[in-house]
Amino acid sequence: MDKAMYAAIESHMLSCMGDSAHDKEHIYRVLHMALDLAGHEGEDVDRDILTAAALLHDIGREDQFRDPSLCHAEAGSVKAYDFLLSLGWDEGRAGWVRACILTHRYRSDRPPQSIEAKLLFDADKLDVTGAIGIARTLYYGGAVGSALYSLDEHGLVLDGTEAGPNTFLQEYRHKLEHIGEKLYTSRAREIAAGRKQAAQSFYENLLAEIRGCC
Amino acid sequence: MDKAMYAAIESHMLSCMGDSAHDKEHIYRVLHMALDLAGHEGEDVDRDILTAAALLHDIGREDQFRDPSLCHAEAGSVKAYDFLLSLGWDEGRAGWVRACILTHRYRSDRPPQSIEAKLLFDADKLDVTGAIGIARTLYYGGAVGSALYSLDEHGLVLDGTEAGPNTFLQEYRHKLEHIGEKLYTSRAREIAAGRKQAAQSFYENLLAEIRGCC
Repeated sequence: MDKAMYAAIESHMLSCMGDSAHDKEHIYRVLHMALDLAGHEGEDVDRDILTAAALLHDIGREDQFRDPSLCHAEAGSVKAYDFLLSLGWDEGRAGWVRACILTHRYRSDRPPQSIEAKLLFDADKLDVTGAIGIARTLYYGGAVGSALYSLDEHGLVLDGTEAGPNTFLQEYRHKLEHIGEKLYTSRAREIAAGRKQAAQSFYENLLAEIRGCC
Repeated sequence: MDKAMYAAIESHMLSCMGDSAHDKEHIYRVLHMALDLAGHEGEDVDRDILTAAALLHDIGREDQFRDPSLCHAEAGSVKAYDFLLSLGWDEGRAGWVRACILTHRYRSDRPPQSIEAKLLFDADKLDVTGAIGIARTLYYGGAVGSALYSLDEHGLVLDGTEAGPNTFLQEYRHKLEHIGEKLYTSRAREIAAGRKQAAQSFYENLLAEIRGCC
């Protein structure tokens, strides 16, 4: 991809970014991580497809924020396709990027198909592992006003394994803790494993501190 | 303090609480911690003063949120004083609570005077130590839309020791890391020391992960 094309796609991405958990730095981390993971793959990776998909994967976030019934992956995939056509991309390659963006969100009924789609999926999911994942989840919780934890009927602090209203401890136990199992590439699983202890220690320390003063 | 008085003060507190970092659970943690710290003090502590001050210490937060030029400790101290007078408290005891609330925010020119004011200060500051402090600071960052970190002119991730726009890494290095030094009671310093490693590990893991993908 030449510099002018990169700058045009980047500029469009920057005009679409929203909350602190999904800001432009998240996009650059995912782009960097996706290209890094690509270097560990045996098969050929189309880096232009991967770069465009990584830069544009969250441009549907604002739509979902305004209307939570929308899926940002669906909204973003259509917006990215139209945008790339407007830049002169052919329908085949724009559609390839659209498919990567459509499947980057975890949905068991819509797994990523191409290697580029799997790399985008893994790079995006790695950004919710480790201390980065904890930090971004807490940023998002603060932005939407959710609670850190909830109490049972006796006033005791629940550990997040319970069903119920959405707290940070639940988000960790139901989602963050299991991200590593969902990754497609071995390099991504290796990075997730290396970051696991940081997130788990934080969760355990937080729960112990809260229980010590509630 | 009898149950009816506690319920009246608690109810007023609940009607004033705002963002997730300063929600009612923060108030209950501070109240519990303040009473726990009081049990380790040699001198007599007036638990009614301490309870009222802990419950009402953040009722000026909404005012500061609406108008950042206001200090929530000043606004809250006046509101708490008026409210306690309306419940029939005499001016002396309501003024004692007002003084505790006025000095609970860190200001070198306005240190807490009474033992109750010192206990409220320490209990409130302990809630920004350890993993709880990290979690609450990130919640607040997400609510106000600040960034996790910033980059230097070469695109390298800064570690937070730099001056400049307010990021989470700066908040940790300039403020959270030094909370323990500002505490008045030995029991609070002991608790802060026990929580220090949790916060420091999180900061170090986060910085290493970010630098690994930027």
